Amino acid sequence: MNNKLKAKLITIGDEILIGQIVNTNAAFLGDKLFSIGIPVVKTLVIGDEEQILLDELEDSILNYDVTIITGGLGPTHDDITKPTLIKYFKDELVTDEKVLTHVKNIFASRNNVMPEVNKAQALVPKNSEVIWNQNGTAPGIWIEKNNKIVIALPGVPYEMKAMIENIILSKLLDYFKVSMKEFYMQKTLLTTGVGESLLNEKLGNIYEIIGKNKMAFLPSSEGVRLRINVVAESMKSAEKEINNIETKIRNKISDYIYGINDESLELVVGKLLREKNQTLSLAESCTGGLISSRIVSVPGSSEYYTGGTCTYSNKEKINILGVKEDIIMKHGAVSEETAILMAEGIRKLMDTDYALSTTGVAGPSGGSKEKPVGLVWIGFSSKEKSYAKSYLFGERRDLNMGRASMRALEILRRELLNIEIKF
Amino acid sequence: MNNKLKAKLITIGDEILIGQIVNTNAAFLGDKLFSIGIPVVKTLVIGDEEQILLDELEDSILNYDVTIITGGLGPTHDDITKPTLIKYFKDELVTDEKVLTHVKNIFASRNNVMPEVNKAQALVPKNSEVIWNQNGTAPGIWIEKNNKIVIALPGVPYEMKAMIENIILSKLLDYFKVSMKEFYMQKTLLTTGVGESLLNEKLGNIYEIIGKNKMAFLPSSEGVRLRINVVAESMKSAEKEINNIETKIRNKISDYIYGINDESLELVVGKLLREKNQTLSLAESCTGGLISSRIVSVPGSSEYYTGGTCTYSNKEKINILGVKEDIIMKHGAVSEETAILMAEGIRKLMDTDYALSTTGVAGPSGGSKEKPVGLVWIGFSSKEKSYAKSYLFGERRDLNMGRASMRALEILRRELLNIEIKF
Repeated sequence: MNNKLKAKLITIGDEILIGQIVNTNAAFLGDKLFSIGIPVVKTLVIGDEEQILLDELEDSILNYDVTIITGGLGPTHDDITKPTLIKYFKDELVTDEKVLTHVKNIFASRNNVMPEVNKAQALVPKNSEVIWNQNGTAPGIWIEKNNKIVIALPGVPYEMKAMIENIILSKLLDYFKVSMKEFYMQKTLLTTGVGESLLNEKLGNIYEIIGKNKMAFLPSSEGVRLRINVVAESMKSAEKEINNIETKIRNKISDYIYGINDESLELVVGKLLREKNQTLSLAESCTGGLISSRIVSVPGSSEYYTGGTCTYSNKEKINILGVKEDIIMKHGAVSEETAILMAEGIRKLMDTDYALSTTGVAGPSGGSKEKPVGLVWIGFSSKEKSYAKSYLFGERRDLNMGRASMRALEILRRELLNIEIKF
Repeated sequence: MNNKLKAKLITIGDEILIGQIVNTNAAFLGDKLFSIGIPVVKTLVIGDEEQILLDELEDSILNYDVTIITGGLGPTHDDITKPTLIKYFKDELVTDEKVLTHVKNIFASRNNVMPEVNKAQALVPKNSEVIWNQNGTAPGIWIEKNNKIVIALPGVPYEMKAMIENIILSKLLDYFKVSMKEFYMQKTLLTTGVGESLLNEKLGNIYEIIGKNKMAFLPSSEGVRLRINVVAESMKSAEKEINNIETKIRNKISDYIYGINDESLELVVGKLLREKNQTLSLAESCTGGLISSRIVSVPGSSEYYTGGTCTYSNKEKINILGVKEDIIMKHGAVSEETAILMAEGIRKLMDTDYALSTTGVAGPSGGSKEKPVGLVWIGFSSKEKSYAKSYLFGERRDLNMGRASMRALEILRRELLNIEIKF
């Protein structure tokens, strides 16, 4: 590693050690630190054992420019981070009055009186700097020693993430400015409705596209992400390089790419609807509100989303959406005909430009040879046309619901952009 | 830790360090090793750096009964596990003929000729035992020194998992049989609608409840989990002990506990509805289908859930749910009156025993001094009564939606069980 900066992560959490939860904080931090040129070289998870943490702090101060500790900052008996920090750094805990006021305000804003034990939240090492926690009660702690930084943050993901993004990344960049000789940049292109191997085939020789840079295929049940990593001598040339690679990739697979980085498909579809000043309604059956909750997760979605129904029983499909009873009798609730009528029904009921519907066998029971678990019909309706398409999304209920909701949104995206639907 | 067995995990993988993938292998191994009484005390992730691995092997042989290394076993230049193992243990690599045949067969079965580089897959340390990899080309390696075990396994999850479950767990139990004098058990009690510190206060002195055992508070934005860990001399006494602790906790906070271990609140509510042979419908506004999608995530939910609406606009609240226009005009869409009428409207429309509704300001915009972002009215309606309650769930859209959906389900649970609603 020579004179490159390197970081180490310490996660405090028994629940991670025994496998109850997965260490997503470490993944987030690894990603963010890499992006500012301080790659994580060692990540560890330990329980609430003082001696191990003391040993690791020693290793940190000797070997790592930045150490980030998450968790163990709470006010209860098993929270060891602060006691161990002051022991290692031969410091003492003092009350930070601003933090104490903040903690009291948080309880007051929820109409609660602060329990006595929470006073301890405002205790911080005397020789440290407080990292403000806008979203919670436990402040972060920033300690410098021998040109090395130790940062302790709460383990609650959204508190920790906001502190990293709003404060710590720029603070680290400031602190190590002198030694920044390489610039790291990454971009992720998001696809859905296409497998890793087909993408691979369409892209051809990867190295002709990326040169000396890195690209990874990151498949999940809802799509494949393509992550590009670039290192260059300046921010500007890193940006140029990454845009170059993106263009080459888009030339080969542009139809499949719905967004970049952390854009969700519902965000992308929402933007398109807003741009076109058009509206959407939903008639969900097997996805049970999942598409609706995704749409609504986007701020401002009320501008283009009027609402939807989750009609789980046939009765409601008939009464509310106006699907004809004899159609359900003849073709079944899970059928092309029903999917189309559901989409048309909700579009008329809510008077929108577009509507989507889903009806399928989510499982685990209820499947037959003709209509197996995982079969989903997705309906689309606009003023010009209505149709439905069927898919087999596999036997796992959670996965087939997730895939169906992604596919429905992707159908809408392609309709909005006039891209042929090849799946 | 005294004479208790303890394990350490080392994951080799740059893609985990930089956050491209999450370390699910560590979660799997933590769970499995805990279940056989060899809890993982330290988990670490490192890249392909020999010196760090050498140092960690030294730490392992000094301090840990079992060390499991995953990854870095492949045949390419950056696979450091085998070279580092023989360096540390002063051993040499020899070809295992059975493994070589296996590797050749795998290539043959895919109609491929084995590339020369893959011969290296069959190289294993002379003083080690091979752990057979039925599903892939890289064999596992089992090394004993000073009564300590070091095991190297491939990083591919399904290969590693099969080797653990089919071979290694029983091999470890055999090896440490003599010292297996303790049995581990854990149970997690799930709460919602109450903070960590209030639970702490209500429970009083934790040690009077848990004695020499462990308990952890695991807060998230949707509730606090209480995890109890027990160690005892037999399975039976571990079970007795854990039930004892659970009873003591329930005596103090039973109303707050909605379930145990990995039960979701929607599963618990679903069970209650099914037992009572009663039905539910939903009229969501600010939660936008989130409650519906949670209800529907439970297999068999069609037995008690007829469906719901997501009426995002006032027009639909009026047209579909029959909320009177003058009520919305007078009190606003986000109001006690509207919430009650939404719940009553959907209950009558879908002819169910119970109905829940939500209407609120999800944010980030749309808030006012009187009705700030995060304000949510939750409505409840049954044949006997209808009411609505208001909450402030904070400014973050995703979090206030999640909290509102949990709170609505918790209101229903308490109504179904006749528990007073104190929040």
